Amino acid sequence: MTGKPARESVVEMAEVVLPQDANTHGTAFGGKIVQWIDLCAGMAAARHCRLPVVTASMDDLHFHAPLKIGHNALLTAKITAVFRSSMEISVRVMAENPLTGERSLCTSAYLTFVGLDAGGKPAEVPPLIAETPEELDAVARAKERRAARLSRAEQRRG
Amino acid sequence: MTGKPARESVVEMAEVVLPQDANTHGTAFGGKIVQWIDLCAGMAAARHCRLPVVTASMDDLHFHAPLKIGHNALLTAKITAVFRSSMEISVRVMAENPLTGERSLCTSAYLTFVGLDAGGKPAEVPPLIAETPEELDAVARAKERRAARLSRAEQRRG
Amino acid sequence: MTGKPARESVVEMAEVVLPQDANTHGTAFGGKIVQWIDLCAGMAAARHCRLPVVTASMDDLHFHAPLKIGHNALLTAKITAVFRSSMEISVRVMAENPLTGERSLCTSAYLTFVGLDAGGKPAEVPPLIAETPEELDAVARAKERRAARLSRAEQRRG
Amino acid sequence: MTGKPARESVVEMAEVVLPQDANTHGTAFGGKIVQWIDLCAGMAAARHCRLPVVTASMDDLHFHAPLKIGHNALLTAKITAVFRSSMEISVRVMAENPLTGERSLCTSAYLTFVGLDAGGKPAEVPPLIAETPEELDAVARAKERRAARLSRAEQRRG
Amino acid sequence: MTGKPARESVVEMAEVVLPQDANTHGTAFGGKIVQWIDLCAGMAAARHCRLPVVTASMDDLHFHAPLKIGHNALLTAKITAVFRSSMEISVRVMAENPLTGERSLCTSAYLTFVGLDAGGKPAEVPPLIAETPEELDAVARAKERRAARLSRAEQRRG
Amino acid sequence: MTGKPARESVVEMAEVVLPQDANTHGTAFGGKIVQWIDLCAGMAAARHCRLPVVTASMDDLHFHAPLKIGHNALLTAKITAVFRSSMEISVRVMAENPLTGERSLCTSAYLTFVGLDAGGKPAEVPPLIAETPEELDAVARAKERRAARLSRAEQRRG
Repeated sequence: MTGKPARESVVEMAEVVLPQDANTHGTAFGGKIVQWIDLCAGMAAARHCRLPVVTASMDDLHFHAPLKIGHNALLTAKITAVFRSSMEISVRVMAENPLTGERSLCTSAYLTFVGLDAGGKPAEVPPLIAETPEELDAVARAKERRAARLSRAEQRRG
Repeated sequence: MTGKPARESVVEMAEVVLPQDANTHGTAFGGKIVQWIDLCAGMAAARHCRLPVVTASMDDLHFHAPLKIGHNALLTAKITAVFRSSMEISVRVMAENPLTGERSLCTSAYLTFVGLDAGGKPAEVPPLIAETPEELDAVARAKERRAARLSRAEQRRG
Repeated sequence: MTGKPARESVVEMAEVVLPQDANTHGTAFGGKIVQWIDLCAGMAAARHCRLPVVTASMDDLHFHAPLKIGHNALLTAKITAVFRSSMEISVRVMAENPLTGERSLCTSAYLTFVGLDAGGKPAEVPPLIAETPEELDAVARAKERRAARLSRAEQRRG
Repeated sequence: MTGKPARESVVEMAEVVLPQDANTHGTAFGGKIVQWIDLCAGMAAARHCRLPVVTASMDDLHFHAPLKIGHNALLTAKITAVFRSSMEISVRVMAENPLTGERSLCTSAYLTFVGLDAGGKPAEVPPLIAETPEELDAVARAKERRAARLSRAEQRRG
Repeated sequence: MTGKPARESVVEMAEVVLPQDANTHGTAFGGKIVQWIDLCAGMAAARHCRLPVVTASMDDLHFHAPLKIGHNALLTAKITAVFRSSMEISVRVMAENPLTGERSLCTSAYLTFVGLDAGGKPAEVPPLIAETPEELDAVARAKERRAARLSRAEQRRG
Repeated sequence: MTGKPARESVVEMAEVVLPQDANTHGTAFGGKIVQWIDLCAGMAAARHCRLPVVTASMDDLHFHAPLKIGHNALLTAKITAVFRSSMEISVRVMAENPLTGERSLCTSAYLTFVGLDAGGKPAEVPPLIAETPEELDAVARAKERRAARLSRAEQRRG
């Protein structure tokens, strides 16, 4: 299977934070931000493998700062590593103040998606071609996260 | 007031068309697509003038082809011309088939937004700097559309 | 094909503007108003032709005044002209202050819908019978708008 | 306080039943229909008293027939009786098949709304002027329903 | 058909009242509360009969007190009586102040659901086994409500 | 500050999976499930500390099996450990087939919430009283997860 560079599946998404997205503190509801993250990561995963994909897990989802109503949420999803039928995707959400243009990190997360064949079973996906030092480093860290994830999963079962 | 190039306020937005966005034909509901167009154009207008903005009008909104559930909607908003306190914005919506990567034009529209001062009154916005032949041509056509719009408005009143 | 008078397909719709319909200025979000306009016009088009219909375009959509949260939106859709398989529909949205009963025009638009046959192809729709001087005048203006629309479309392509 | 005829506060509302309104049987979700009923009755109540209003109760809400996705819901709300600060409103929901124009009763209900003064306390509302035999009959039946309602409420407490 | 105790189908549901659930008074929109009530009662009905179910009617739906944004809605649905193919369900909605833990009754209602066979026709459902004095009393009152409901329905037709 | 047993803040939530919650595979959209998880965990956190709370992070969010439209989602949130101003909450989502009553694990996650004082700054929350061997074990594992989380966070910065 031919590999595919990470840059080919990058997805950029922009959303206006509307009053209907508010939590009871008057900032964006966490569940809504995660919904955008899930969609953005899913688009990147599908662009990489050109298969139907499903979310398998989310990790290290951090809400660094609240997202204000009326501000924009700018999401970027990028594949960090591929493991046979699963893909780890990094999503970063920047808050943009529309009146000043100022941007700051508001949420970040790692998601794992699985590509599916016609029968709904996990399917092999193209290997990832890491082209820059940052991309190579991302692969290494994704492997560590995956090892930690599997060891935690084993611990839960054991 | 210092001018601003059109490229500085371009907005790119990506949306997954979900079952809850469907009309009764099983494709994306027109009203939902227009909602995305309005938000995307509004973000571009705010980036140009860094003021609160409101939609004043929409024109030449064409649904060229239906947008299928499960496909992605990729929107691009770009300022075409500026008229003292109003900005005309062109929005193009491409449909992306996630399994093939194929893209095709599904909707296009021109919107006019107005920048507002602290009292909610129309405020002067930065002139547009058209840098390419396409951008200069866009300004010329925007002027024609505006003239036609004003003449139709007069006709309605008269 | 037997003609049908414009009054037989008029649709009246009423909506309460709720907090979840708000934009970041605390008035109704433009995209939401357009959604109501699209649904109201679609009901009128379907009543005229008794076929599945799809939105082809929107024009001269003007937001004359903001619509306040807690006020009512009263929409009226009326066929203005019929062109073989397409229908132009005028929609007017009045804002009603529920505490005073005062009404004022807040949004207006012209939409073009197409009737579809069983195979999803454009189908001939009943001619429109204009019965009043206003209805005859509406047909004349609709023809002018259509000519302008087609000439603008040609210009875009050319 | 001057009375007001029932016909002056009648509200007509039209909604398209969209796929996102569906229950798991593929027809309109009961909760969604009740939401429309509540809004329609509230508009009628506010038109009668020109005060902020709140829903106090709903009774005899019957789902006579399912409402199909793609059909229209046509609601009519009419004041049946007034009791100092409360108003009983009858709402009938007709289903319209857009391809045939056929209409049939799908849901009906009686709602009681209360008018509120500036402090949020129940406020006296204009008496109802029943003008037709049907309206006089409606008042009589509303009184019976109110008596039964109060006796059931007492029973619950007692 | 074997009977089933009421306690086996009790459903408890908890919802946070979010800003998007607000009416124009800044408390939860009645239509939204009814939507939760309908879902909660439907879950209880399905647990009792293990069949697809539809809402047939709602009665004595009382809004005792407003439900504040940011508070929790705690719903409890319990079968009160069974009549061959229909089930009466009592739903009580308590408001919980998250900062104090204080709870108070905000809404209550009786709903009637019907179990459906594979062809969508009413199907016999398991009899209810009332085990406590309260449950026996609930059955008796449900019978009275049903008799009153049928007599009112007859009156409407007659 | 007086401690509080874990059982006092347990939250149980039930949701019907409706067609509008579907992803493009016809099962519940991951973003929607996470929204329910966030709300359920937030209710438990607020019950523990009786303060406004915000989501700080989510970890080990696993989608074990898809959740079908028409099935019920039964969520349970329970505090696993408290660290001065933050609380770790475990949420488990069971899928219930309404026709058989069968239940199976569909999603699980750990969330960290922070209690806020009147100025919006992190506030000390009551210590957790673990009463059973399972609860004591949960505290131990939560400490390990927290250590791993902090070490990963340091790695990202370093």
